[in-house]
Amino acid sequence: MFNEKLDDIVTELVKNYDSDLIQFDSPNRHFPSRSAIVGIIKDLRRVLFPRYFGDERPCASGPQYFIGETLTHIEYELHREVREALLFRGGDNLSYHEADAQASQICSDFFYRLPEIQRMLFDDVQAAYDGDPAAQSREEIIYSYPGFFAISVYRIAHVFYELNVPLIPRIMSEYAHSHTGVDINAGADIGRFFFIDHATGVVIGETTKIGEHVKIYQGVTLGAISLRAGQKLAGKKRHPTIEDNVTIYSNASVLGGNTVVGAGSVIAGSTFVTQSVPPNSRVTSSGVEVREPGCANLEVKVPGEK
Amino acid sequence: MFNEKLDDIVTELVKNYDSDLIQFDSPNRHFPSRSAIVGIIKDLRRVLFPRYFGDERPCASGPQYFIGETLTHIEYELHREVREALLFRGGDNLSYHEADAQASQICSDFFYRLPEIQRMLFDDVQAAYDGDPAAQSREEIIYSYPGFFAISVYRIAHVFYELNVPLIPRIMSEYAHSHTGVDINAGADIGRFFFIDHATGVVIGETTKIGEHVKIYQGVTLGAISLRAGQKLAGKKRHPTIEDNVTIYSNASVLGGNTVVGAGSVIAGSTFVTQSVPPNSRVTSSGVEVREPGCANLEVKVPGEK
Amino acid sequence: MFNEKLDDIVTELVKNYDSDLIQFDSPNRHFPSRSAIVGIIKDLRRVLFPRYFGDERPCASGPQYFIGETLTHIEYELHREVREALLFRGGDNLSYHEADAQASQICSDFFYRLPEIQRMLFDDVQAAYDGDPAAQSREEIIYSYPGFFAISVYRIAHVFYELNVPLIPRIMSEYAHSHTGVDINAGADIGRFFFIDHATGVVIGETTKIGEHVKIYQGVTLGAISLRAGQKLAGKKRHPTIEDNVTIYSNASVLGGNTVVGAGSVIAGSTFVTQSVPPNSRVTSSGVEVREPGCANLEVKVPGEK
Amino acid sequence: MFNEKLDDIVTELVKNYDSDLIQFDSPNRHFPSRSAIVGIIKDLRRVLFPRYFGDERPCASGPQYFIGETLTHIEYELHREVREALLFRGGDNLSYHEADAQASQICSDFFYRLPEIQRMLFDDVQAAYDGDPAAQSREEIIYSYPGFFAISVYRIAHVFYELNVPLIPRIMSEYAHSHTGVDINAGADIGRFFFIDHATGVVIGETTKIGEHVKIYQGVTLGAISLRAGQKLAGKKRHPTIEDNVTIYSNASVLGGNTVVGAGSVIAGSTFVTQSVPPNSRVTSSGVEVREPGCANLEVKVPGEK
Amino acid sequence: MFNEKLDDIVTELVKNYDSDLIQFDSPNRHFPSRSAIVGIIKDLRRVLFPRYFGDERPCASGPQYFIGETLTHIEYELHREVREALLFRGGDNLSYHEADAQASQICSDFFYRLPEIQRMLFDDVQAAYDGDPAAQSREEIIYSYPGFFAISVYRIAHVFYELNVPLIPRIMSEYAHSHTGVDINAGADIGRFFFIDHATGVVIGETTKIGEHVKIYQGVTLGAISLRAGQKLAGKKRHPTIEDNVTIYSNASVLGGNTVVGAGSVIAGSTFVTQSVPPNSRVTSSGVEVREPGCANLEVKVPGEK
Amino acid sequence: MFNEKLDDIVTELVKNYDSDLIQFDSPNRHFPSRSAIVGIIKDLRRVLFPRYFGDERPCASGPQYFIGETLTHIEYELHREVREALLFRGGDNLSYHEADAQASQICSDFFYRLPEIQRMLFDDVQAAYDGDPAAQSREEIIYSYPGFFAISVYRIAHVFYELNVPLIPRIMSEYAHSHTGVDINAGADIGRFFFIDHATGVVIGETTKIGEHVKIYQGVTLGAISLRAGQKLAGKKRHPTIEDNVTIYSNASVLGGNTVVGAGSVIAGSTFVTQSVPPNSRVTSSGVEVREPGCANLEVKVPGEK
Repeated sequence: MFNEKLDDIVTELVKNYDSDLIQFDSPNRHFPSRSAIVGIIKDLRRVLFPRYFGDERPCASGPQYFIGETLTHIEYELHREVREALLFRGGDNLSYHEADAQASQICSDFFYRLPEIQRMLFDDVQAAYDGDPAAQSREEIIYSYPGFFAISVYRIAHVFYELNVPLIPRIMSEYAHSHTGVDINAGADIGRFFFIDHATGVVIGETTKIGEHVKIYQGVTLGAISLRAGQKLAGKKRHPTIEDNVTIYSNASVLGGNTVVGAGSVIAGSTFVTQSVPPNSRVTSSGVEVREPGCANLEVKVPGEK
Repeated sequence: MFNEKLDDIVTELVKNYDSDLIQFDSPNRHFPSRSAIVGIIKDLRRVLFPRYFGDERPCASGPQYFIGETLTHIEYELHREVREALLFRGGDNLSYHEADAQASQICSDFFYRLPEIQRMLFDDVQAAYDGDPAAQSREEIIYSYPGFFAISVYRIAHVFYELNVPLIPRIMSEYAHSHTGVDINAGADIGRFFFIDHATGVVIGETTKIGEHVKIYQGVTLGAISLRAGQKLAGKKRHPTIEDNVTIYSNASVLGGNTVVGAGSVIAGSTFVTQSVPPNSRVTSSGVEVREPGCANLEVKVPGEK
Repeated sequence: MFNEKLDDIVTELVKNYDSDLIQFDSPNRHFPSRSAIVGIIKDLRRVLFPRYFGDERPCASGPQYFIGETLTHIEYELHREVREALLFRGGDNLSYHEADAQASQICSDFFYRLPEIQRMLFDDVQAAYDGDPAAQSREEIIYSYPGFFAISVYRIAHVFYELNVPLIPRIMSEYAHSHTGVDINAGADIGRFFFIDHATGVVIGETTKIGEHVKIYQGVTLGAISLRAGQKLAGKKRHPTIEDNVTIYSNASVLGGNTVVGAGSVIAGSTFVTQSVPPNSRVTSSGVEVREPGCANLEVKVPGEK
Repeated sequence: MFNEKLDDIVTELVKNYDSDLIQFDSPNRHFPSRSAIVGIIKDLRRVLFPRYFGDERPCASGPQYFIGETLTHIEYELHREVREALLFRGGDNLSYHEADAQASQICSDFFYRLPEIQRMLFDDVQAAYDGDPAAQSREEIIYSYPGFFAISVYRIAHVFYELNVPLIPRIMSEYAHSHTGVDINAGADIGRFFFIDHATGVVIGETTKIGEHVKIYQGVTLGAISLRAGQKLAGKKRHPTIEDNVTIYSNASVLGGNTVVGAGSVIAGSTFVTQSVPPNSRVTSSGVEVREPGCANLEVKVPGEK
Repeated sequence: MFNEKLDDIVTELVKNYDSDLIQFDSPNRHFPSRSAIVGIIKDLRRVLFPRYFGDERPCASGPQYFIGETLTHIEYELHREVREALLFRGGDNLSYHEADAQASQICSDFFYRLPEIQRMLFDDVQAAYDGDPAAQSREEIIYSYPGFFAISVYRIAHVFYELNVPLIPRIMSEYAHSHTGVDINAGADIGRFFFIDHATGVVIGETTKIGEHVKIYQGVTLGAISLRAGQKLAGKKRHPTIEDNVTIYSNASVLGGNTVVGAGSVIAGSTFVTQSVPPNSRVTSSGVEVREPGCANLEVKVPGEK
Repeated sequence: MFNEKLDDIVTELVKNYDSDLIQFDSPNRHFPSRSAIVGIIKDLRRVLFPRYFGDERPCASGPQYFIGETLTHIEYELHREVREALLFRGGDNLSYHEADAQASQICSDFFYRLPEIQRMLFDDVQAAYDGDPAAQSREEIIYSYPGFFAISVYRIAHVFYELNVPLIPRIMSEYAHSHTGVDINAGADIGRFFFIDHATGVVIGETTKIGEHVKIYQGVTLGAISLRAGQKLAGKKRHPTIEDNVTIYSNASVLGGNTVVGAGSVIAGSTFVTQSVPPNSRVTSSGVEVREPGCANLEVKVPGEK
């Protein structure tokens, strides 16, 4: 039966292919390769934390051969993918030669920042170790914590976002999202010593700003109050600002581009915050209470309880 | 030591194998192959959005060869898996020949509906683009949005659910669930222009009905109030109805088979809704307020706040 | 440009490699292999539920050959990984020979408990079938329910936790976490007939204790109120106790080491519980109500509603 | 340009597809799978020589689990391939059910002979060790001698030839041929203690008969004098008989169905023999000389030399 | 120790890299990809003999979709490899744009000849079937005869040789050589109905010319008498001419660019022919004898025998 | 039926496993891994001829990172395989520690000789280019000539033979043998500028000694006259000596440990040489003729011809 209908179905689908969403007949546009970008992430992690994610071999003559060769390999892959992404966005307005030169500059800028990325990740490991009594060692965090994985990918993707590379930061973020359930938009601006515990179901929007020593739990949303304004809001600050030393418990939502959570505040689980709170606040579903700095013991009550 | 105990452990496990859950000695029952079904999904996505998920080659002589050959390949795989699934359910009451004929009809029906599935997905892309200011292009949505991925798989799985194919819709749903954290039961009935933003932690139950232009966020549950009645509820409407143009914010739960969220309503984040609300309602944790249609600005307050 | 800067970047990264987080020059420490451990999980699932996850062939002469050979293979892999993990923790204080002997004992103990693990999983299947009207068969649960997958991995990982094996329980848990969004710490103590419906976004902490016939939904957290005490809390009971026959709905959080949810209680969705509730309680966001045992119909209201 | 011509080329090839050599439209005929048969060979070698060609793990509780499970796996694969081969030959005259039953019997017969095949291969190892001073151990022969590889495959393929299975013996022979350059037709009848040194470029025809303790070198042909009679000769003895204890040196050809090389003879390299020689002959390009048994020292001269 | 010497060894090898044989620093030259070319061969074989070498699915609506799509895929791969090969040869004298246009023309010319290649291969199958009494069917020849495999690859490679494509014909020939031990230079000119029996150890040189209905056996060389003149002989006819209906037995060598083996001749095994022989000759190691056409019974004697 | 007989077949095979050829129960002996050794060969070829056999990326900052990192990787693999091979031979007489130390020394010695191996291969490329008019470039030889492949593997394997490593040289040789039909025993001693044309069916025995600028063709054997003395001959010189500037044509055999082919000689095809010939000889099947050096034109006649 299928055989009898096949010609008709083909005809019908060929008609649909007239949609400008279909790329079948665009010979000069290519999507960056998702699997190549995942490979780049994996190779970067091997350079940043050797022997955790690969089987790099110790070598008493020093690690420079390993680093140099691995970076050379990564650059080759990255250069191509960045060029494809630029060409995809640029369309007829960008020549292959221009795209290639821009890609070259972007790669160079990225690698120049790599040592600093590594140092920031060292601090994130420390934050996780200090924050989680279940962590038996700092190595365990690097090796197996999904929150640290998501932050690692974010810190890499963020540089490409800043370098105005299209598509690739998104592909990186969604790779981490898919593996961890943590969706950090590459545009977010996140300070040092960041920790996400039990990382799952976390959303951090594109224009979020996060200070240092911030700790968040599963299910936390740092989002927008967008309400169907859609593309008109592109580029505007739509997500909150979280200052230093804030802790946000599980399933809390903090929304809105003007919302600022003051330094040292604690947001209880399952709360829904859409207005700013001053520093050292303690926010529960019963309200906001400002406390002395350092006084941080949370006694949450079941709402309605005596 | 292991060697000394091995015979005993084997003996013990052989005893457990008497359980009717163990399929070891059922030569004629086969589970449909999970990897084959994932392959079918991937191939369907290549036909629906060529060059996004594969390396299909542009061909000026037209896409008919690509479509015809890919569908022929998919049909071959699908036919076999559907037949196995029917035989698994049918047991001794269904002959191989009958199952094969039914599978043939089911495949034919499915492919006949494929062009319409594609058109629905075009609309879903549009909904996502209109709804997300962070989207830089509609191509980006197709290529990398997990919400769109989950909806794509749902729209395919739903047809098999309607065609009463066992196991396969579930395998498809769980594939999308595993990759995105979005669990849309294939039985749900979802209208056009559907968008899930920051897709993660979303649950949409089997008997849910969703209208057109509905937008939901991460962590939303459209679920049942089942309370241990279990299998007795099978087949009954247990999940809510969401009418056109409704928006449901992050971590909200809407539960119950009789619950209807009227058209144009907005459900705030982290709310817990178990009763119907009229059209154009605005539901927060403080209560329900009905508004004029079109008046859609949400000003949520932290509960208890002045 | 990259080529010109490469030597400098290498030099900079070599400096970072002085960090004690970097394992590049530690020839005698190896992380257990993540992929080997995932392989062990997969093989164990094939023994526990043959023909669901592999293509084991029925054999009228009995399953003993299949079981014996597969266990022998698993033991080989497991032995090596356990030894590596012990050596990683032990550092210079543990000889290869000692580690090998301990690994041998641990493997032997683990396999001795395998038949009991299988019987517990049979009960978990039954609990899922009784609890989910969307389940068409018990086979479907084993084959495709992510909640059952997460519980299966937990029951295996828990034995290694009890046998005081480092790293491996964590790797197992994170494997399940990554695939399902369900993060059950291997240290949790969970009774028979456990069911997680729509498994996604669930967190169960290390010192949680769960009775029999407990059912939880997506987004549930059984967590700690840790507030930055960090490593000082290691080893203390920080997570709640859930007694028999409790049901916890979607997105509820139950926190704290002293929190006990009494037998037969029902916790409504999106609640935030940090204090103990007596048996047969019904907890909503409006408060706690104690009911007669068996009286279990939940009528939740939208808070603030008349 | 290609795109413009594609439709024409397709049309032209479609015409060629009318040839009865093309199987495109024969839904019920399948070739046995070459890769499956290669897999069967590899698995059989793992059973016959465990740990040489796989990574089977020693198990002090005995090898029965390994053997039983591996044979069960092989039987499953073999059964299917034999059935396909029978159906391919049988066409419309053989039902699926009949083919399946015959395949079942054939598999059973084959496995029954497997222990004897193993014992014959033990003897072939001994022959190679006794015959090659470059062999450092008998393990080296099993592990790495292409001549032994070719003989192993032959001994397996020969059983299927005797059981009158179509195609599969040929696929097996060509697998060995491709890897070693040794083409032993599965129909040949070869005695114990057979050795091929420097195995490459050797051809042994279908109706060849070889006794025990025969040793041949690279480039030897035991062939037919067929001269274009072609298919009329099918089934007739066309290849020579080699009696016990014969040695045939490199690049010699012995041809013809009536040619018998008597026991204990030595055939020098690069000779071309088409008539029978009596026992204990010494054949060089200068002629045939009969010697006392046991007197085996060959002093070959360059032809034409004084 | 290795670690101590590594820097020195690296330095030494870096010096060797100054050789102009090393391509490390030639960013714009790429070898054609061997694996891509092997993939092209495999895909071409699937088009030429569908279902023998792949799992193409029968489709009652006709094979045009299969052919069109497969050719489109092959063209994409081939185009790139041909362009790389042209650029490799052209060096600085050939622009990317020119190479691309030439590659486009070459691909178009190749595919235009593909139907004719297929018809020639049909004839080669017939020749093999007529010539080998051990062949049970013509399908068996296509499916498993190494001689037919080598001829198939030759007939493809020869077209690229004629189209003056560098490197690729050689890569194709060596692929067949490696799998079969048959080394047919792509430059040879071979007529229809060609058959190589027991294909192994056969060499056919670049300027060989072979007529129709020629049959050769294992170990045959059609070679040059080159004697160290080396590159001076490039382009000259150095290999023999074999006229129609000639048979050449195993291990015979026919050498020299002026050597012509007349139509209908038979060359016995292990002979060494360096001068022309008239039509209908019978060449043995004893000499040349001219016979009546059709009188073809070979009675070879062991040299020196009475 | 198989199922009924399985227990019996297992029992029978278990009995065969008592043979001392079976390694099933030898926990401490491991064969070196064939696939690891093939990987080592491939990696060495990538270092020796970068970009020919891999996709090493040009890097203007110099090749030292590539070389250093690749050698470090190879050393890791090689060290382990050499140690296993030593332990396999050593049995109970060699401790793990001793084997490890010996392996370390062997690896160090091998890498120290690697630059020299590379230089010898450069010369072999030159010899092939000078000797083959069909070669279009020297790159083509490196990239695709099987003779050069076989020589490359030999030059590597020979070093391990000289370092007295068991099994590994054999595995290397058989890898090349299987791919090319050229069987060069790693023990042979072969001078610079060696070329094998149309490499197939070539055998070069363990104690062969070959000078510089020697050229041989397909089917040549440099072998032993062993005649069943077998293991008694181990270690003795059994294969010929070929002096500088000798050419040996196709299918010729030169046999015997005392046979010396004097410098500058030419051996015609299909000859069989078992006695020494003086320098500048010209050997045909008609006899030996000594010529003036430099007079090298071969005019071969068909034997028996006038």
